[in-house]
This record gives sequence, C-alpha cells and structure tokens, in this order.
Amino acid sequence: MYLETIDSPADLKKLAADQLPALACEIRAFILQNISRTGGHLASNLGAVELTLALHYAFESPKDKFIFDVGHQSYTHKIVTGRKGRFHTVRTYHGLSGFPRRTESAHDIADTGHASTSISLGLGLDTAVRLKKAEGRVIAIIGDGSITGGLALEAINNAGHLPTNLIIIVNNNEMSIGTNIGAFAKYLNKKIQAPGVQSLAMSIDALADKLPFGERAKDIIHRIESSVKAFIAPGIVFRELGFRYLGPVDGHSIDDLIATFDLAKTISGPLLIQVNTIKGKGYEHSEMNPSSYHGVGEFDVATGTAKKKKQKTFSALFGETLTQLAADDSRIVAITAAMCEGTGLEPFSRAYPGRFFDVGIAEGHALTFAAGLAIGNCRPVVALYSTFLQRGFDNVIHDIANMNLPVIIGIDRAGLVPEDGETHQGIFDLAYLRMIPNMTIFAPAGAHDLAEAIACALSRGTPTAIRYPKDAVPDLPPNLVPKEMVYGKAHTVFDGKDGAVLSFGSTLVTAYHAINDLSQKPSLALINLSTVWPLDEDAIVSAAMKYKRLMIIEEGVVNGGIGSAVLEVLARHETAVPVKLLGIPNSFVPSASREVLLKKYRLDRVGLRREMQVFFSRRGFASWRLRNR
Amino acid sequence: MYLETIDSPADLKKLAADQLPALACEIRAFILQNISRTGGHLASNLGAVELTLALHYAFESPKDKFIFDVGHQSYTHKIVTGRKGRFHTVRTYHGLSGFPRRTESAHDIADTGHASTSISLGLGLDTAVRLKKAEGRVIAIIGDGSITGGLALEAINNAGHLPTNLIIIVNNNEMSIGTNIGAFAKYLNKKIQAPGVQSLAMSIDALADKLPFGERAKDIIHRIESSVKAFIAPGIVFRELGFRYLGPVDGHSIDDLIATFDLAKTISGPLLIQVNTIKGKGYEHSEMNPSSYHGVGEFDVATGTAKKKKQKTFSALFGETLTQLAADDSRIVAITAAMCEGTGLEPFSRAYPGRFFDVGIAEGHALTFAAGLAIGNCRPVVALYSTFLQRGFDNVIHDIANMNLPVIIGIDRAGLVPEDGETHQGIFDLAYLRMIPNMTIFAPAGAHDLAEAIACALSRGTPTAIRYPKDAVPDLPPNLVPKEMVYGKAHTVFDGKDGAVLSFGSTLVTAYHAINDLSQKPSLALINLSTVWPLDEDAIVSAAMKYKRLMIIEEGVVNGGIGSAVLEVLARHETAVPVKLLGIPNSFVPSASREVLLKKYRLDRVGLRREMQVFFSRRGFASWRLRNR
Repeated sequence: MYLETIDSPADLKKLAADQLPALACEIRAFILQNISRTGGHLASNLGAVELTLALHYAFESPKDKFIFDVGHQSYTHKIVTGRKGRFHTVRTYHGLSGFPRRTESAHDIADTGHASTSISLGLGLDTAVRLKKAEGRVIAIIGDGSITGGLALEAINNAGHLPTNLIIIVNNNEMSIGTNIGAFAKYLNKKIQAPGVQSLAMSIDALADKLPFGERAKDIIHRIESSVKAFIAPGIVFRELGFRYLGPVDGHSIDDLIATFDLAKTISGPLLIQVNTIKGKGYEHSEMNPSSYHGVGEFDVATGTAKKKKQKTFSALFGETLTQLAADDSRIVAITAAMCEGTGLEPFSRAYPGRFFDVGIAEGHALTFAAGLAIGNCRPVVALYSTFLQRGFDNVIHDIANMNLPVIIGIDRAGLVPEDGETHQGIFDLAYLRMIPNMTIFAPAGAHDLAEAIACALSRGTPTAIRYPKDAVPDLPPNLVPKEMVYGKAHTVFDGKDGAVLSFGSTLVTAYHAINDLSQKPSLALINLSTVWPLDEDAIVSAAMKYKRLMIIEEGVVNGGIGSAVLEVLARHETAVPVKLLGIPNSFVPSASREVLLKKYRLDRVGLRREMQVFFSRRGFASWRLRNR
Repeated sequence: MYLETIDSPADLKKLAADQLPALACEIRAFILQNISRTGGHLASNLGAVELTLALHYAFESPKDKFIFDVGHQSYTHKIVTGRKGRFHTVRTYHGLSGFPRRTESAHDIADTGHASTSISLGLGLDTAVRLKKAEGRVIAIIGDGSITGGLALEAINNAGHLPTNLIIIVNNNEMSIGTNIGAFAKYLNKKIQAPGVQSLAMSIDALADKLPFGERAKDIIHRIESSVKAFIAPGIVFRELGFRYLGPVDGHSIDDLIATFDLAKTISGPLLIQVNTIKGKGYEHSEMNPSSYHGVGEFDVATGTAKKKKQKTFSALFGETLTQLAADDSRIVAITAAMCEGTGLEPFSRAYPGRFFDVGIAEGHALTFAAGLAIGNCRPVVALYSTFLQRGFDNVIHDIANMNLPVIIGIDRAGLVPEDGETHQGIFDLAYLRMIPNMTIFAPAGAHDLAEAIACALSRGTPTAIRYPKDAVPDLPPNLVPKEMVYGKAHTVFDGKDGAVLSFGSTLVTAYHAINDLSQKPSLALINLSTVWPLDEDAIVSAAMKYKRLMIIEEGVVNGGIGSAVLEVLARHETAVPVKLLGIPNSFVPSASREVLLKKYRLDRVGLRREMQVFFSRRGFASWRLRNR
C-alpha cells in the first residue's frame, strides 16, 4: 500500500515512477470508497488521477503553482498534499471543501469553482512571478469544456501576446458537465491525420534524453518541436495564437505525462499541453455514463446505484412543464450552458432536439443568443444555475432587459446550494435582478405555481426570471399558493393579529409551518409575495398599516434583497413600522447540506419560529403614516 | 449631390455602383460637419462608410438583418435608412441615439452599445430565421477589437458547430477603443505569406461570374474556395473552428466589398469575411490619431482641435494619482480593458510600461487576471467604466471578493453618463457591489478624497471599488470632505435642526449648495458618507435619532442602492424615521448631457432644493426606537 506513505508531494517523489500506477489505483479506490459515502464530484476526479500524480511528481508544489480550473478534479491533489486523513469530511460543514481553497492549504493556489478562470488567474500569477523575479512555474489545468468559456478564451487571446511562461494543460475528456458542444471541443478531438505523430511528445522527449541539457539542447528541442508540430492538426490554432503546443498525450500514462512535463519545464513562452483523459476512468459505471456520475450523492460502489431514493426536484419539474408547453407553443426553444441534465432539460432535448441548444460552458452567450432568438420571434427559455447566471449579468441588462425581450430565465439552484460551498451559492440573484428595469421575478413554492409562473411569463412576453432551489418539490398545504396567479398581486394565506410574515418561494412553506408551531401566540398573518417582482406595493403598505409589524423571509442575501425592496416601498409610501429582514447575511456561505445551512441562518422551521417569537413579542413601538402627502 | 436623394436603402440601389465612392465622400463630410457640432463617435464611423454602403447595396435591409457590434459605427447606416434629417440631433435628449435602437427604426435590428454581442445575437436571430423558415440573411459586423471579448469568442465557438448561415464581417481596423492587444488581433493583422492571394475574394468572384449560377456552380465555388484558402494564413484559425473564410478585402473599395458580399450570399454555412479598414479614414486628424477621435466633443473641422477647454477630469486625476503612488510602491500594477486613454492611465502606461496591462476588450479577464496578480503579491488596480464592469460581476464575486484579494477597481464613468444613452449608464454599480461580501466602496467628491481613497485601499489590502463620474473634478467648499479619511466613518459637514441629508461622491457638492440655497429654512444637516461601504451604522442611527428625518442622495439606482442600505441599517437597529431616497428610478436612462439628466432626475441643485423643501417641511410624523432589544 503506497497511499499510506503519502502525506506530502515530497513523499510522492520518494516513490519510483513505475510505482505510481499502483498508487493511482489505490487513490481511485480511496476516492470511490469515500465519495460513495459523502457524495461529490466523481467522474472528473477519477479522470484526473494520473495527471495529478504526474504533475506533483514532475513539478514542485507549492513553489510551482497548480491552478485547477473549476476545481472539481482536485481530490487527488488534496489527497497527496496532506489532506488524506480529513478526506472523509469532504463537502461537509467545517470539513474539507470539494474545491481548492486558499484557506485550506498552501498547495491550493486559488479558489476555483466556476469554470474557465484558471488561465486568467495563471496569467496574472505568472506575471507577478516575473515582476517579482520570484521562482516557480505556473500551471493552469483546464478541461476542454471549460476552455469554451469566454473568460478562458479572453485569457488565451491575452496570453499569446504577453511575455509569459504560463503552462496550460488542456485536460481533453470530451466532456463538460453535459456533453461538450462547440467548435473548440470538436477541434481538440479531431483525428490526427499525419501518420505516426500521435507519440510526438514521446519522440521529442526520447531525443531530449540523448542530449546534454543546456541552452543549446533546449534550442534544438524547440526547433525540432516546431517543425514536427507543423504537421499536427491539433496544434495549429494554438500555434497561430502564439502558443507552443505539446500533445496530445495519453492522460492515463504516467510515464508519458512525466516525460512531457519534464520537457515542458525546459520550454519558455506560453505553452499548451493537450492531455487526453477518460472521464470516470477506472470505474465502469462512471466511464459508461460520466454525466450521471459528475456530481453524485451516496451510492453503492458495487452496483453504482444511488442510495437515496430520488424525489421529484424543481429542476425535473421545470423541464417537464416546459416540454409539455412546447407541444402547443412552437415558439418555445430551450437553451442551457452545459447544464442539460442538471436543469432538467433532458426530456425537452429528446422531444425537441431542433429547438434545444446546449451552447457549452458559455453563460453569457447562452443569454445573448436567447436575445437573438427572441428578436426573431421565438420564446427562448434559458435554464442556468443561479451562481452561473452571475456570469451573464450584463447580458441580462444590455441584451435582454434593455430591449425588453421575451426571454425567460429558469434560475436553478437558487438559494442555499448543498455541499458545493462558497463558490456555488445561489444567493445573489434576487438582489442583482431586481435592480434591472423591465425585469419580472417569480419564485414558485411548489408545482402548481411553477407551472403558473412559466405560463404567465409566456403570455406577458417580457424578461422574466423564475427561481427555484436545488431541492425536492414540496407538497403544499391548501391555500398556500393562489389558485390563479395574478401578476403583481400578493396572496394572503391567512390572517393574524400581532403582525405579518411576508415570504415566497422556498421559504414560504417553512414559514407556514413555523407560524403554526407558534400555536396562535403571537398570532401572525402570512402573505405570499407570489409574483415576487415587481412588488405588490398596495399589499405591502396595507399589511404594514393593518398588522403594524412585518417580517420578510427570503432565501437570498439580505443586502439589497427583496426585504430591502419592501423597506423601499414603505419609505416611498411614508409608512414606517418595525420590519425584520431574514435571509443570508453578508458573508460567503460555506459547504454544508441545505439542512445545516438553513439552520445556521435560522431559516429552518425551528429558527423561524424563534425569530418570530422574539420579534413579534416585542412591546413599546409605535407606527405612523404621514397623511399630508 | 447624391446624398440628397437617399432616404432609404432602396434609393441607394438606384445609384450605379461607381457613384457610391462619391456618395461615401459626401457622407464623410456630412458626418464630420454634424459630429464636429454635436460630438460623437468619429473615427469608427469614418472607417465604416464604404463598408456600410456596400452592405446596404448588396443586401436588403431589413429583410437581411445587420447587427452592428458596439454600434458606434452605425452613423452611415442611420443616414441611409431615413434618419439623415434628424442626424443633427444625434446623442441629444429626445434626439437620435448614437447607437442602434430598435425603437428608432426597423433597420436597427438590435440595441448594441457594449462590445462583442453581435455574433451571439446574430446566431440566435439566424437560428430563429431557420426555425421559422423565414427569409433573410443575418450579418454581424464586428471590429477586431470586439472579437477579443469573451462573448464573441463563445459565440464563434458555438457558431462553428451549428447549422447556421450567419455571416460575420470582421472589420479589421487594428484598433479597439485603445490600441488593440492580443493574439487574435495580431493574427488578423499577420502578413499574408503566400504570393498573390491577397485578392482571393476577387478571383473567386471573377470565376463565379463565368459560371451559370445554380447548385452546381455553388458547389464548385465552395470547393475552389476551400482549396485556395488552405494556403492563406488569416483563414486557418477560423476554418479550423468550422467557418468558411473570405478575405481580407479592402474595406474602402466599394467594388471589392460588393463583389465579396454578392459571393457571400451564395455561400451557406457559417461564413467569416475579413475586411480591412482604416479607422478615421478620410479625415487626416483622425487617421493620424484615431484613439483621440474615438469619442469627441465639439471640435473645429479645419484644425481638429476641441472647442471646449478641457478641465481636469476624475479620470485624469485617478491616473495621475496612481502614477505618483507607483513611484514609491513597486507592488502597484495597472490594468485596463481597451480603455487606457478613457480611464486616464496613459501617464501610468508611459511611466511604467512593464507594470501596465491593457488586455483588450475583455473586462472579465482584466479582473481575474488582476486576481492572479494579487495572489502573486502585486497590488493590481483595474480601471474600467462602470457600465463595462457589469461584464465582470462574477469575476468580482468569484475571483476577487471570495478570496478577499487586494484588488482595487477604479470605476470610471460611474453615475449618469453623457450622450451615450441607455447602454452606457453607470448607474448600477453601487447596488450590485454592496451585496458582495468583503467589498469596500469609496466615492470621492473631489481631488483630496480621491487620493485618500486610493491610499486607504492600498493600506487595507482588501477588495475595494472607487467610483467617480465622467466629469470635471470640482473645487470643493471647505470641510465638505474630511481632512483625513477614517475607514468606515461618515463625516458631518454641518449641523441642522429640521432633518439631515446624507450624500457622497458626485452629488455631495450639489447637495451642499442646494441646502445653502434654502437659506436656513428648513435647517438641514449634511452628512458625507465619505467611505460609502460598509456604512457607518452608528452615524446613520444617531442621525435618525437626532434629526428625525433623513434624505439620502446618490447618483445610482434607488433599487438596492445605498439609500436602500440605509433603510436596512435603520430596520436592523429598529429605528424608524421618515426617509426619502433620491437617485435614478427604475428605468433605462436615455441619451442626454449630464446636466439634462441630472435635472430630469431632480439631482441638480434646483431639483434637490425643491425635494428638500417638500420633504423636510412636512409635519405630522413621529419617530420611534425600540429600547427593549
């Protein structure tokens, strides 16, 4: 057992290179064993075991700096940099993050979680190394899915022009979160036509071994490299853009990888290495179906089946509803950015392949592409995760809202997102969308009002966001949501004497139960801000006048959120009553289950009940309204 | 005089092709004459005259759909599509927009203003045309500067894979707003090495003329085209990415352009045409110095000199201050995204060329690149326009704030931006930045506190935005800003009896004068929220208790803005007093001068005085504070 001996990259270097494949097997077993219990990113991590071992063997972390794009392939990196013993805590509250975190280890150079950041970060860091005359190479490790993101392409464009020694490793696994779509990916996977060049890196390396290393040797290597490369298809685009290019290298051959990296160390200028790997490598179930094993919950290692029974999620319901509506409305088209399965659009993509567009990891383009479709009289529905919609903020403002186009944005994983931590929370969308003119925001609480929201958005034909959590669709008590949604109208669920609770979406049913738990003392009204934005100003002002105390509960940041908008309404109507805003406070939200996070922020049933008890039991306030307007 | 006869594209087609060069001359003179009076985008428009005429001559707008990227080259398009008579109103209030606007003409297919959107929009629109089996070609016209933007690259990646007939015209003028930087631009400008291929489009076209047009002819043309192209450097990258490629074409030869476009009409599949133009073409002063003639105010046509004397702007002051600080602090590096002149960084770029990075039109990369530099212990300062910072929203959240990195963002053109209209207003930044954990926001009112803000940001070493308007630096009355800025502390300018006005940044001095204009009735205190965010909560609560009425004035959206944050503070401290929020209401802001816009939103001296009179003269309110916390 080699793994027992590895507590740092230095331990790794004590092994002979031919012992590493056995270590790779052990690490795969270790990851499988742990992730089948904790859940996590499986397929991407299984695919990057040899690559990561070769990197740590050939380079010297943290003097040499690895930046893992997206970060969901960093488990092996964590395991060999002293975090093996804590690995069973991955993605739990106060446990290891599932992504690189600077606060966790000196070997984690940058926090990554969103795709396509590594080349920009690496280019900046390598520039700093050069300016400070510091030591060490900077290596960005990016998947062929992530390289289609605009940020990565901007950085490639910039790198080809700068005096940088950045090494970019393209981990070509023919796969982003969904199936990879786009010219770049197609290009990377093109069959090499010139005979015998597949082993380019190897032959150059063999040659290099025979030469005394020194300036002259490097020079010769570079010249050979350039002339051989001219015949190889995969390199042309990158070479034209100013990169040296090595590869493609078999990403599961540790020998080939180490030899390539040793060669790379001798090359200066921006260098791109293409490594071909198999996502899910070494575990039959995930090799066969890597999309399903991208992010997994607890599962049985032998059979590959999930342990928890799946309940119907909002994502699935959204996709189903849209698929049904599309049968009668040929204007509907659906778009996502490498989140087809995650957003529940698979049934749509099967039923209407010609009306479904997965644009790859490119959220900005997904939205502006939708704007173009809307100009052409289609009714585009873009389904994205809340945290990734942040990348299309300006596209929503400039390309959708400014032209008041009928684009529907399905915001999946809105609110607290389980296990993925700081980089994946969907807590900002309410706050950043409500400042945009022409926007409508819906936040359905269940199946009925989700369908109503989509129908309403289609019939109104203006920019509309519909947000829902990464959670099962709850059964709702009767009357919690209105039978018919009326645009801009709040819905009173029940009346009360001592104050009113305003909520919507994911927190509504919890608020309902919390109020019932109070058993009439204090006696609280519950108002469902059913169509969240624009707010029902009349209902809010009336509630303030009638109930004298308001609590607003939302699963999003308090700063600038919907509660804050309620305060604006009250100020504008010169109505002041005590108002309590409950939501996510002003700090990044760590990894934990949704249950733990909701409890942490007192948005669970018990927490809400306590907050209500405290706030609504206070005495000694007055309320006023200015009458001489 | 041909121009007199042109009121629509149909009129244009009545002219013989050999009459178009003369028309181009007339249009240049017309543009020069008008823009020298109104100000506007000069160099880009002068460069695109022949290109636009040829497009309207060869294609049929609006059946064929032109999408002008950035839109600052659309003057000729406006002139030949029936807006010649209103052209003198360009960029004025209620006048023509300086950019394409759907509400202005059926020939304006999409509102554009930000760079790099045209290919995404065009790809969506062409897809809609295909799905709806409608007629017409979609043509995106994009500069070599804009093509470096991530959104354009995402769209190119996607287009090369879709069954689209989109035509992309790359207007290669070797210039974005500043000098174009990056591998793509370098690549487009590469000298063609194979002899005799410069006239590719022409020779193919000549051949096409000799063949009977039909499916077979097209087929032959395509095959010839492909084989010839293989020898031409500029096409390789695009061809590898799935495009057919024509060019480069001389963008000032109307004959060549028309011939190329006629050929393009016969080609299906995604097509990229490279057109080389000279920015500022036909006007000596702008040809020599296109950056200075990118956006101009009133100027003398004969000498090219500006009519208004330039006052020192915030942009210039920011650049100068930074340049001074960099002398003693070698950690400082400066970054911009094709806004070197606009953001006042020219002196810095000359003084410290090795520490200055213009990454091209790529705002997201500029910010994440800065994050990388900060990880490497540099102190990056990124200067961007507020409206373009929207494109880096997620980069601020995910790559800067989440890692709490010492990046300073200089937000230029924050607030109301003169003449550029809806797409260029800097009104959202306060609202979208204050929701991000770890952020600090400063909004200096003048020279002294701008310097203090930069120094404070450098010494604190956390993510900081410093916002300032596109305006001259005002002389400030004594005591308006504190002698020494204390982080997180508001500054009382003067005391009052009937209420308090809270303001900061660009509106502070106007608020000062407006209060003085009231001549003591009502008697108002003025508080400078000197370091805007995080708010000085104690000062706000104390002011509410002491003055009983608060007005918050900001040059930004009211929805979610700083006023809204003040309401949150008051609610959290259970202190309710009448509060009036003044700022930009919830709609897009049209073209007009800053003066007109400030007046429109009552943020000018007279407007503020009136708002103060009305709000602070009310009677009949009470205020309360809950004591039993």
